[in-house]
Amino acid sequence: MPAPIAPKRVLVLNGPNLNMLGRRQPEVYGHDTLEDIRDACVDFAAPRGWDLDFRQSNHEGELVSWIQEARENADAVVINPAAYTHTSVAILDALLLLDIPVIEVHLSNIHKREAFRHHSFVSQAASGVICGFGAKGYLMALASLDSM
Amino acid sequence: MPAPIAPKRVLVLNGPNLNMLGRRQPEVYGHDTLEDIRDACVDFAAPRGWDLDFRQSNHEGELVSWIQEARENADAVVINPAAYTHTSVAILDALLLLDIPVIEVHLSNIHKREAFRHHSFVSQAASGVICGFGAKGYLMALASLDSM
Amino acid sequence: MPAPIAPKRVLVLNGPNLNMLGRRQPEVYGHDTLEDIRDACVDFAAPRGWDLDFRQSNHEGELVSWIQEARENADAVVINPAAYTHTSVAILDALLLLDIPVIEVHLSNIHKREAFRHHSFVSQAASGVICGFGAKGYLMALASLDSM
Amino acid sequence: MPAPIAPKRVLVLNGPNLNMLGRRQPEVYGHDTLEDIRDACVDFAAPRGWDLDFRQSNHEGELVSWIQEARENADAVVINPAAYTHTSVAILDALLLLDIPVIEVHLSNIHKREAFRHHSFVSQAASGVICGFGAKGYLMALASLDSM
Amino acid sequence: MPAPIAPKRVLVLNGPNLNMLGRRQPEVYGHDTLEDIRDACVDFAAPRGWDLDFRQSNHEGELVSWIQEARENADAVVINPAAYTHTSVAILDALLLLDIPVIEVHLSNIHKREAFRHHSFVSQAASGVICGFGAKGYLMALASLDSM
Amino acid sequence: MPAPIAPKRVLVLNGPNLNMLGRRQPEVYGHDTLEDIRDACVDFAAPRGWDLDFRQSNHEGELVSWIQEARENADAVVINPAAYTHTSVAILDALLLLDIPVIEVHLSNIHKREAFRHHSFVSQAASGVICGFGAKGYLMALASLDSM
Amino acid sequence: MPAPIAPKRVLVLNGPNLNMLGRRQPEVYGHDTLEDIRDACVDFAAPRGWDLDFRQSNHEGELVSWIQEARENADAVVINPAAYTHTSVAILDALLLLDIPVIEVHLSNIHKREAFRHHSFVSQAASGVICGFGAKGYLMALASLDSM
Amino acid sequence: MPAPIAPKRVLVLNGPNLNMLGRRQPEVYGHDTLEDIRDACVDFAAPRGWDLDFRQSNHEGELVSWIQEARENADAVVINPAAYTHTSVAILDALLLLDIPVIEVHLSNIHKREAFRHHSFVSQAASGVICGFGAKGYLMALASLDSM
Amino acid sequence: MPAPIAPKRVLVLNGPNLNMLGRRQPEVYGHDTLEDIRDACVDFAAPRGWDLDFRQSNHEGELVSWIQEARENADAVVINPAAYTHTSVAILDALLLLDIPVIEVHLSNIHKREAFRHHSFVSQAASGVICGFGAKGYLMALASLDSM
Amino acid sequence: MPAPIAPKRVLVLNGPNLNMLGRRQPEVYGHDTLEDIRDACVDFAAPRGWDLDFRQSNHEGELVSWIQEARENADAVVINPAAYTHTSVAILDALLLLDIPVIEVHLSNIHKREAFRHHSFVSQAASGVICGFGAKGYLMALASLDSM
Amino acid sequence: MPAPIAPKRVLVLNGPNLNMLGRRQPEVYGHDTLEDIRDACVDFAAPRGWDLDFRQSNHEGELVSWIQEARENADAVVINPAAYTHTSVAILDALLLLDIPVIEVHLSNIHKREAFRHHSFVSQAASGVICGFGAKGYLMALASLDSM
Amino acid sequence: MPAPIAPKRVLVLNGPNLNMLGRRQPEVYGHDTLEDIRDACVDFAAPRGWDLDFRQSNHEGELVSWIQEARENADAVVINPAAYTHTSVAILDALLLLDIPVIEVHLSNIHKREAFRHHSFVSQAASGVICGFGAKGYLMALASLDSM
Repeated sequence: MPAPIAPKRVLVLNGPNLNMLGRRQPEVYGHDTLEDIRDACVDFAAPRGWDLDFRQSNHEGELVSWIQEARENADAVVINPAAYTHTSVAILDALLLLDIPVIEVHLSNIHKREAFRHHSFVSQAASGVICGFGAKGYLMALASLDSM
Repeated sequence: MPAPIAPKRVLVLNGPNLNMLGRRQPEVYGHDTLEDIRDACVDFAAPRGWDLDFRQSNHEGELVSWIQEARENADAVVINPAAYTHTSVAILDALLLLDIPVIEVHLSNIHKREAFRHHSFVSQAASGVICGFGAKGYLMALASLDSM
Repeated sequence: MPAPIAPKRVLVLNGPNLNMLGRRQPEVYGHDTLEDIRDACVDFAAPRGWDLDFRQSNHEGELVSWIQEARENADAVVINPAAYTHTSVAILDALLLLDIPVIEVHLSNIHKREAFRHHSFVSQAASGVICGFGAKGYLMALASLDSM
Repeated sequence: MPAPIAPKRVLVLNGPNLNMLGRRQPEVYGHDTLEDIRDACVDFAAPRGWDLDFRQSNHEGELVSWIQEARENADAVVINPAAYTHTSVAILDALLLLDIPVIEVHLSNIHKREAFRHHSFVSQAASGVICGFGAKGYLMALASLDSM
Repeated sequence: MPAPIAPKRVLVLNGPNLNMLGRRQPEVYGHDTLEDIRDACVDFAAPRGWDLDFRQSNHEGELVSWIQEARENADAVVINPAAYTHTSVAILDALLLLDIPVIEVHLSNIHKREAFRHHSFVSQAASGVICGFGAKGYLMALASLDSM
Repeated sequence: MPAPIAPKRVLVLNGPNLNMLGRRQPEVYGHDTLEDIRDACVDFAAPRGWDLDFRQSNHEGELVSWIQEARENADAVVINPAAYTHTSVAILDALLLLDIPVIEVHLSNIHKREAFRHHSFVSQAASGVICGFGAKGYLMALASLDSM
Repeated sequence: MPAPIAPKRVLVLNGPNLNMLGRRQPEVYGHDTLEDIRDACVDFAAPRGWDLDFRQSNHEGELVSWIQEARENADAVVINPAAYTHTSVAILDALLLLDIPVIEVHLSNIHKREAFRHHSFVSQAASGVICGFGAKGYLMALASLDSM
Repeated sequence: MPAPIAPKRVLVLNGPNLNMLGRRQPEVYGHDTLEDIRDACVDFAAPRGWDLDFRQSNHEGELVSWIQEARENADAVVINPAAYTHTSVAILDALLLLDIPVIEVHLSNIHKREAFRHHSFVSQAASGVICGFGAKGYLMALASLDSM
Repeated sequence: MPAPIAPKRVLVLNGPNLNMLGRRQPEVYGHDTLEDIRDACVDFAAPRGWDLDFRQSNHEGELVSWIQEARENADAVVINPAAYTHTSVAILDALLLLDIPVIEVHLSNIHKREAFRHHSFVSQAASGVICGFGAKGYLMALASLDSM
Repeated sequence: MPAPIAPKRVLVLNGPNLNMLGRRQPEVYGHDTLEDIRDACVDFAAPRGWDLDFRQSNHEGELVSWIQEARENADAVVINPAAYTHTSVAILDALLLLDIPVIEVHLSNIHKREAFRHHSFVSQAASGVICGFGAKGYLMALASLDSM
Repeated sequence: MPAPIAPKRVLVLNGPNLNMLGRRQPEVYGHDTLEDIRDACVDFAAPRGWDLDFRQSNHEGELVSWIQEARENADAVVINPAAYTHTSVAILDALLLLDIPVIEVHLSNIHKREAFRHHSFVSQAASGVICGFGAKGYLMALASLDSM
Repeated sequence: MPAPIAPKRVLVLNGPNLNMLGRRQPEVYGHDTLEDIRDACVDFAAPRGWDLDFRQSNHEGELVSWIQEARENADAVVINPAAYTHTSVAILDALLLLDIPVIEVHLSNIHKREAFRHHSFVSQAASGVICGFGAKGYLMALASLDSM
């Protein structure tokens, strides 16, 4: 269990297709766009004086590189790996290199979806997992890092 | 995704062995006792004017009955099913009878533990799932119900 | 195949959540409540001079105990084990102790539902199985015991 | 669940080897011949004014064709698919073309037999399933169609 | 990959239940009847001077025999094996006896349907597979044989 | 183990595609045609005064019916079920009705071929199994019935 | 391996249906009743000055609670979990809370019975396992705690 | 089934290693280079006035991005995902965002190759699938979009 | 299919426990002792002028060595590998070194026994397999080598 | 369940690597050497007048031969098959030839170790199984044969 | 087995996260950085007059492209695919395009790690595999190409 | 990873059938005989002053015994377990008793062969694994022990 850490720098990573959020299948993913989520995260981080770095990539390799950078540049990682949740050992290995809190977030409850979405490689490197709360899950992840 | 509902009455259910919390394996479950968690939950609920009903049982059947009561007496359910997470279709069926938010909480990240703890029947009836945050997970569950 | 036995005493057992019958998911389970079913069963048994004992429990252990009592107190058992169908070796073992007819009843056709509902431990101890006929299945079970 | 339909025309179909009924393995299938069962079914149907069409085939394709005819010529189908229960997607597909009640009957409790007999393709298209009651199962199937 | 062969004689085979096409489940199989498809195929073949033999059977054995005849009487086979796709080793073995192009056609995208429809024995003997294009798939199969 | 029975009447059954024997894939099945095999069997049976009935069918149902007839008309069955070996519960059930020796023959060693050819339903009803000896396997099956 | 501990207090727990012991299936479970076994255990414990607490329950939850109590009230646990052996993660979790010897006993050799009886959750928390010795197994368990 | 749509803009996507086409393993993939295929596609599209955009990438993420663009810039997608067919949930998720026809093409008959090539994630989002026709499959895909 | 080879030297190998043949479980293995079988084999071989070398070992390694010797000293191998049938890759590898006929013999029909006896490593190196004919199977194996 | 038999001759067999006992991994296997265990067994047997034959072999075949000898020379077998527990059908088959009590002993609780150590072929022929008691398990096995 | 080839140009490829080598988990991967390994490889290649091209990428697609280039620019490939070992069919397909030696290297013994790391797609295209020797494995790979 | 150890004594063990090396299947195993390999190993060891003990056995038990001796007599083990790679827990257990480097060698790339050859019990006790380099793999194993 991650203790609250009052992080100075939080890296929020988003996996493939999350840049399309809010444009289709709102019954699965909600109406918020990724920009909406970023703004809400910034609004949460700003008053706490946290430096929030919010990124998205469709490239597994780019996500791996960003996670590696977090070794130097971040105090915590919040990650929604999207489709790579289920297929990327490379992201798992990158996260295993970190010794800061890693919070895994999923917009939908993946356990209610197709069987191939039930397994997460990323969970094996995550401190905590939050799924099924839509955009709010990101704020819950940030709040978990706060000294409440 | 459950919308914030500003619930009047929240039922918090705890499964088998959680009454022993804090007495052993703190590296897995943390140092908080179940009483500590109840108190923290009450502290969260009181200022919001919520009626918080916090229970624990080692009996699958009793948990089923309590969930059934929630149809009449609660606006939301937070449940840490503990060992019954993995074996109880009866609890799943009881939860499927509800049409209020159901938040599943696990103290530890069950995906990092033995393989038989990776599967949750309860997740198929949960609005959202929170795992790996220790005692704080209960407050995150309550907060998810709040109109932030 | 059970021969018709013109039983004096029939024990009808109902598993978890069946006390909620008729209150939700009528498209799966029908509109009858468990009380309606009990009344229909009594109406069937009374003119035949049968003693009908109709019970429900959410507790696996209580169902086990009731089945044990049937060794002394019943000539036949009709059982709808609900969720325990799929998970209870204890109920199977209790039924294996009996040498009277055991009829397994399911309201819905469990073979059309989720994969984990396809397997029944109870069927290994049942004389006959009836599923998918809704409340009427109970009467069919009773009728199977009658000397038509 | 099929509502009682007081059918005018009922098609009763029997799969491979059922023409040999009563000649061997009575401990599994009982002593009744298929002719005995047909007669009992006719005796049930006649006073109700139902037209009962009772057939047997060893040919999967012939059973498929007969099921197709039921679209025009029957109000309900009772089927004991015997060995084709476990192997015939073609019979399943034919049954899926119907919108009348389909009752699946097995003489023995298939769940107590070899593992390959536990799975039924036909159950995915059946309204209800009756197994383990021997020849009486056919009459129970017919009775399920009756307005009791 | 089959080279275009400008065949003189094409055998088009249809498996069980395809004679019922267009009468039910149009959302799965489309509105065309098998007669419509035959006519469209003939319209395609006629101007090219091909002899088109279009058949349907519910019998696995009859389909096997027809495939065997193709050794003498056809230059190409187009086959929609329907339900036998998933269960018939006999049809696979018959097709393996041919040394002419064999095109497998499915009206619906079988990979989107139940798991037991994902596996095709026939594909192991097919030159090419076309699925999900409805009735048009037959014409695509014929066109693949043409010298475009 | 079947004792030698000096049978008066032997039924030799051949499954789908065996009528094409010798016309293709001689490296798998040998050069003999089914007629060659029949002749060799007759040559074996004649001097022993046995009545040999040698048949082939592509129809599972027809094979089932022929096996049923063997109850009246044969003292032993030799069967090469070909593709139905792996898929036909109906043939298995028909063979289970017999109480005479049943010898299963395969031309090729099915254990060296594709995985789906390794399992035989028929073996569960066979007295003995002979595979991999080509056409000679039929004669070995007949010889096994002889009082050597 | 548990060292002999000359325990002051031993808790002997019995799972579902063991209260019926000796009344049926003696070929599987022997002729001793649970009372006979309790008496034999007391006879073993008394001369050694041990306090023996012998209980049976059909309720998984009650067994869980009793195991929890052992943290305060016992120096060793002997448990025959019966059917819950194979299904109860809750009992496993309760046993994992103990740091005293836990001996698992089964009357029959569960490895010779149905496949679902081969796996034991309880074994993962047991110091030692004894199975197949009938009632004598309880005394062997007690003797293993003694300083021989 | 996609209706012919007479598309104005068609995006043809090619996955990893297809840029090497024609340079090795012609017995599997044929002799055509990817440039040959592009030219043939352009030749098909030009007279119909379609705008054809033909691309190849070895990067899963780039393919995902191109599919996303298709929401704005294309009326249909033809995709040969090559190796990503079997491993990419990200491409599946991107395709699920589209509401235009998606045709999946494979040069070889993947069902005849290694087992890990039999499963396609992409098929779950495809309108239709064409495999085993070599380079001609692309033209068949385009033709399927045409109003024949 | 092995052609008849009129071998000069035949090696007959017997695996573990076959030295105990005839002393127990005659209902499975028959009443013949291994000496009886050897004598019958010699009686078969002698008039044909074959040199028959008949051995038994409980040691996997010894069987491997004997098979290796067959490269120099035998024209055919008949082997009943008994328990090693199911577990020995070493025997399989030794047999793969031979280029003479290898006939696998089993006294009982292994396909009717426990599941772990259904798979044979040895069959992957055998020319032919004979099972279920008891001691006679050895003579059938020898006869298969003869020019009938 | 084996009745106490007051055996005259007990054969105690030890499988591969047990000759190295006490020299490494004492946390798994304890500090006793195999000689220590033999001495303790002799000390147990001597005062009872039993003839104890204690052996160890690394050879599967030698263990098989020793078990066969037990048919003539022993009244009971205690066996710790070590690694062969999980892989030897030959030892299972040898044990099945005996009709005297067979007690299987394991030093460690094999159910807590790697998955491939959970399955025991030997258990299918054992009267009783004792595991997890270290060297003491041998004495418990002997004691189980005694008339306590 | 690759013959020594005295290559002029060797391409050494490193997969995701290997750029982080030496910075964490030295107990798994050793203390060498990737730069250290490159230098050691260059030191090995230089005196032999080989041109060594040493690269790392986190991108699956980039690795695929580099492998494709090797068709023109290299005489041998040494590859440590890291996480992509287990998930990349694209890299496998690229390697299958080469006809030069491919040596697969893993720093750790992947067979001792989590189950999902036991399977390698790459091994299906590798000439040889070296794992568990840490940084030295690269030199062993190079040495295997040398004419020793 | 084993550090170079400049061993005084190296034990090189070879499993079943390796004594036949070079006599058959050179396309799989190469043309070298085991004597050739031994000579090459001696040539490598001699100038380094190592004592090389090179053995082969077809007996699993003998290999186990030799590995046990290595505790006293060797500083490193190189082992090619051949067929026992896949089936021997006994060899694994013997290797686990050692605390010296263990290098596993396979002549062929076992991952390209039949599925049952992909799993190695031995790898769980090996420091490093080398496969697919033919006879050269032995020298690579020795070189890995050297201080290069």
